[in-house]
Amino acid sequence: MKKLKRSARLVEMTQYLLSRPHTLIPLTTFAERYGAAKSSISEDLAIIKEVFEDEGMGDLQTLAGAAGGVKFMPKMSYERSLSFIQNLCELLEQPDRILPGGYLYMSDLLGQPATTNEIGKIMATAFAGREIDAVMTVETKGIPLAYAVGSQLNLPVVLVRRDHQVTEGSAVSINYVSGSHKSLHTMSLSRRALPEKSRVLIVDDFMKAGGTVQGMIDLLREFNAEVAGVGVLVESGEVDSEERLLHDYVSLATLTAVDPKTKQISVAPGNYFNRSE
Amino acid sequence: MKKLKRSARLVEMTQYLLSRPHTLIPLTTFAERYGAAKSSISEDLAIIKEVFEDEGMGDLQTLAGAAGGVKFMPKMSYERSLSFIQNLCELLEQPDRILPGGYLYMSDLLGQPATTNEIGKIMATAFAGREIDAVMTVETKGIPLAYAVGSQLNLPVVLVRRDHQVTEGSAVSINYVSGSHKSLHTMSLSRRALPEKSRVLIVDDFMKAGGTVQGMIDLLREFNAEVAGVGVLVESGEVDSEERLLHDYVSLATLTAVDPKTKQISVAPGNYFNRSE
Repeated sequence: MKKLKRSARLVEMTQYLLSRPHTLIPLTTFAERYGAAKSSISEDLAIIKEVFEDEGMGDLQTLAGAAGGVKFMPKMSYERSLSFIQNLCELLEQPDRILPGGYLYMSDLLGQPATTNEIGKIMATAFAGREIDAVMTVETKGIPLAYAVGSQLNLPVVLVRRDHQVTEGSAVSINYVSGSHKSLHTMSLSRRALPEKSRVLIVDDFMKAGGTVQGMIDLLREFNAEVAGVGVLVESGEVDSEERLLHDYVSLATLTAVDPKTKQISVAPGNYFNRSE
Repeated sequence: MKKLKRSARLVEMTQYLLSRPHTLIPLTTFAERYGAAKSSISEDLAIIKEVFEDEGMGDLQTLAGAAGGVKFMPKMSYERSLSFIQNLCELLEQPDRILPGGYLYMSDLLGQPATTNEIGKIMATAFAGREIDAVMTVETKGIPLAYAVGSQLNLPVVLVRRDHQVTEGSAVSINYVSGSHKSLHTMSLSRRALPEKSRVLIVDDFMKAGGTVQGMIDLLREFNAEVAGVGVLVESGEVDSEERLLHDYVSLATLTAVDPKTKQISVAPGNYFNRSE
């Protein structure tokens, strides 16, 4: 198509790969795109792979054979993830973040796309090895995180609604118990939003006992769908283990203590950093 | 720090710039990062600039002087934007999308992060020249679009809530009229979510008469904030001009006709494509 020098080709291929994560790209696509020999393309990819890996940005997987090609899998290294989360924990410990009911004001941080994108990369790394068909969250605050994860894993995002006024045709509704008052709520999902037997990664911004996440798990059952994983940004560590409804999940941060009187908050890296290394 | 060959440096700089849109990066950052002379860095940037511009990916702006540096401004060309939107219009014309009240089912399309990211690039191009401090939307379906725009423009996103159960401290609430039944609703925004005198870009997925957007504009007044622009993905063209509350906005697509009986839908590129070239 167009003849490019190696230097220009490297810039072009880098942006092409970065904007198509978890997508298999045949070498012929590049060869035709740049009017270059496959051997030159392979050399270019080796250079890109080395930089991506040295930078801890992710893997460039090469699949040989007729159906082969190259696939960019964005990842964030343990060290970079930990340092990002430690910084986030410090911000979360600012005393004026305590809200009634043991919640934390996080909207300023979650309102920064650069921050949600980084969180998305960490969660995508945590679940990179699993077979997943879709990312699910319930409105509202988990939405940017779910999209950030879906964007990195190249997966669709399914939104569960909290109201009944859903104008999307027939829907399945379930009741769930959540919050410090154990009050009853309803969540619903449009029938056409999720194909049967999907493998679903549940993402949310905050989890206490896990009632809301458990609600989403119950909803999945109605769609004959499976839970492929549960990832939350912050879990509240102030929950008795017998009160906790959910035990298999990944958290990036743990709210270990909140003192409404002194406004003292303690936040530490979550269970994701216990298991990885 | 680390010595890199030009080829590796180009890959690294490309990803560095792509992940930091609308951010001024001093040349010394690159020079120190790669242990290279500023003159080499300038040559690298010239190569990257040429590829970005040839590909219609955006501008690489160089600012000279002590406070100078380089800034990547993602943009999508008129041709690529139009071809993307024409394809989206075709998908929107599928007959089973009609919902009660003249709405369109779009959740499958807006559930694809790759799609919302492209829409974000087009809207970021539409508003690239304006002075903006924040992107605002009202929950729920506009959220992924607002984040996609915010991500491209490197701006924070402010979420207006539709309920009263907001657990974020003191909030400002207003009433607004929207929908085919002209019913009264409430929206609210936490006091701490938006600094006074902010210049705000309002983004939403769908607009009929404009009652919801008008509600956000009224809310901005309560914060002494200004409207820097209004961008909607789809506007309904089936509104009398005297019924329309809002005249200054950018739409990417227009729903020109819906026939609930025949299930015939017509969608055309929006007003953004009338003015640009």
